[in-house]
Amino acid sequence: MNYFSSDFKLGILGGGQLGKMLLAETRKFDIQTFVLDPSNEAPCKFGASEFFTGNLMDFDAVYNFGKKVNLLTIEIENVNLDALKKLEQEGLPIYPSPKTLELIQNKGNQKDFYVAHNIPTAPHKRFIDLDALKNAISLGTLEMPFVWKSAQFGYDGNGVKIVRSTIDLDNLPNIECIAEQMIPFKNELAVIVARSVSGEVKTYPVVEMEFHPEANQVEYVICPARIDEKVAQKATEIALKVSNIFNHVGLLAVEMFQTNNDDPSAPHELAKQILVNEVAPRPHNSGHYSIEASYTSQFENHLRAILNLPLGNTNSKVAGIMVNLVGEEGFSGQVVYENIEKIIAIDGVTPHIYGKRETRPFRKMGHVTIVNENMTEARKIAEDVKNSIRVISN
Amino acid sequence: MNYFSSDFKLGILGGGQLGKMLLAETRKFDIQTFVLDPSNEAPCKFGASEFFTGNLMDFDAVYNFGKKVNLLTIEIENVNLDALKKLEQEGLPIYPSPKTLELIQNKGNQKDFYVAHNIPTAPHKRFIDLDALKNAISLGTLEMPFVWKSAQFGYDGNGVKIVRSTIDLDNLPNIECIAEQMIPFKNELAVIVARSVSGEVKTYPVVEMEFHPEANQVEYVICPARIDEKVAQKATEIALKVSNIFNHVGLLAVEMFQTNNDDPSAPHELAKQILVNEVAPRPHNSGHYSIEASYTSQFENHLRAILNLPLGNTNSKVAGIMVNLVGEEGFSGQVVYENIEKIIAIDGVTPHIYGKRETRPFRKMGHVTIVNENMTEARKIAEDVKNSIRVISN
Repeated sequence: MNYFSSDFKLGILGGGQLGKMLLAETRKFDIQTFVLDPSNEAPCKFGASEFFTGNLMDFDAVYNFGKKVNLLTIEIENVNLDALKKLEQEGLPIYPSPKTLELIQNKGNQKDFYVAHNIPTAPHKRFIDLDALKNAISLGTLEMPFVWKSAQFGYDGNGVKIVRSTIDLDNLPNIECIAEQMIPFKNELAVIVARSVSGEVKTYPVVEMEFHPEANQVEYVICPARIDEKVAQKATEIALKVSNIFNHVGLLAVEMFQTNNDDPSAPHELAKQILVNEVAPRPHNSGHYSIEASYTSQFENHLRAILNLPLGNTNSKVAGIMVNLVGEEGFSGQVVYENIEKIIAIDGVTPHIYGKRETRPFRKMGHVTIVNENMTEARKIAEDVKNSIRVISN
Repeated sequence: MNYFSSDFKLGILGGGQLGKMLLAETRKFDIQTFVLDPSNEAPCKFGASEFFTGNLMDFDAVYNFGKKVNLLTIEIENVNLDALKKLEQEGLPIYPSPKTLELIQNKGNQKDFYVAHNIPTAPHKRFIDLDALKNAISLGTLEMPFVWKSAQFGYDGNGVKIVRSTIDLDNLPNIECIAEQMIPFKNELAVIVARSVSGEVKTYPVVEMEFHPEANQVEYVICPARIDEKVAQKATEIALKVSNIFNHVGLLAVEMFQTNNDDPSAPHELAKQILVNEVAPRPHNSGHYSIEASYTSQFENHLRAILNLPLGNTNSKVAGIMVNLVGEEGFSGQVVYENIEKIIAIDGVTPHIYGKRETRPFRKMGHVTIVNENMTEARKIAEDVKNSIRVISN
């Protein structure tokens, strides 16, 4: 198949920032792209060959869009699966597959899948709704504290809450959910696995994540993670095992907790104590650093993988740190990136502005990548960047 | 001025590959762009906020386009200067300035400008047309061999010919031209200078160019040039001097010949023997390697310069080599990139496909960047790439 400057059309479900950064790669390769998104002001509005508006959860919208393209991928998991299944039956290649998406869309199923395949993960219980969960607490079969997670549509931390007492349950929605045992951890890690149609597999280096304590959104992604080489190996092995059981095509970002029992030379049970948190079958926030730091960005490798082209080198040229730009609390409206001129004056600092005109508290508006030959220097600059730039409104 | 996710509109005259790669940066910063190009199938068709078709040499087309934007830049020099001058008088910032463009548009004027400012350049004579040049030969005031160059619209080698005997004059057009003394040289070098509105200046490392002997188009651009450090310093000094006399804003690519008399420790006259060939006041083929190899690509620095933002780091992360993808002789029509899958299987190889559907002999269709920690390895891979990929038609 000839993709470059040809009639081939790649369809992308979702037109947000991940789609936008993927479009940068399709433009570089001159591959035609059609994008579907509910918002006419989506970041992918420009850069696609054709942009369509439509509800991604609507059967007809997704099905009709799928009939226009030669291959379909996603930049968001919450899409109409029935439409994807029908399109796949009719012969359309879809990566990740509807089967993979179905498993991932429900966190309860996803967790059960890990347990069934001996993937280390924090112990969990599933509940049909919040009432059932409350009932379990009263019966004494569920003990606090635990991590409440909505089973579906849990995205960017909005569906996650730590429950320490019954008061914390008060404002939770009465929907399907899981309760996950709270495991103390030293670090959050992630490994992105690229896997092509023909089964070629490459992993990106292990990254380390620091979260904002309130917003539960990533503040820094650091590549490579400043961890013991053996821990990195273990995390990579686990990510490859997860990739293998999903049998995905494209990227799979595997998020993990490095617990206090992470010594890889320890006996089997303890050595398992790098725990898989969740996965995303697509380019991921934890891989944005790769645009500037890696030989091949995660977006280019997602494209290569789904088109069954050889995968690119996942190694880094230099150390990379990513800082998310999220809307500051107390500001809503037309966005202003205060001090952006100040941060881009620093060597190795590149802002990515996603193209959302309106800011809201904690809304992901962009990210900044800091690259440097020296990790310590990069980390120092990252802190300067984080302390300087403000995403506010005017 | 706030550029990011704002109402500010950048206008770009020309919608070719340089514009397309510039758009990748405006998208990254979410800066609105309007593009004007004569072809409705230009590479910039997608990726601009709005795309307009119109003749770049037509006063009204350029003037009316200029009235829609807040700042104007170019990706091709051959644009209507009267329209630009009027827009500038009316207060529109235009970078590079119409004055710079006017000087550069005519190679005779450009050469005279170098002579007037003591910039080392090959001796030349100007002729109003080919008849005047022929007359000079018959009178014995012009001796062969020499390099004939059309004074205007000389672009990518199409306006350059080596004249060894009167037979070589046969198919030349009867237009204004210059005859340049043939100087034996070891190497062609280039330095890209970025200069912002407020006068901040940074230079990219000296690159070395290898030309295709027949097509007179660059085959390899190698960064850093494999030359003596003192020669590199001298070339950089000359480039900065040229930048200074043009007083340009944005990028200025300075192409130079490294002659056989390039010893910087030699007496003054000989030391001058790095000769300026010509300049381009915009992103340039000799800087394409920077997308993958540099901390800040030439396109991002052009944007930073014209917006008066701080300039980015021009150093390289890794060695970079660029191979132009030009249409193979004997092929015209719908393009096919033969063996592209083979070359992208090699670590550090990134193709850029410009988005021209039709190939023609020697047409610039794309380029491939090869990056590697090791220059010798990069050079080896570049040769593999060049010998593998073929730009043909089906």
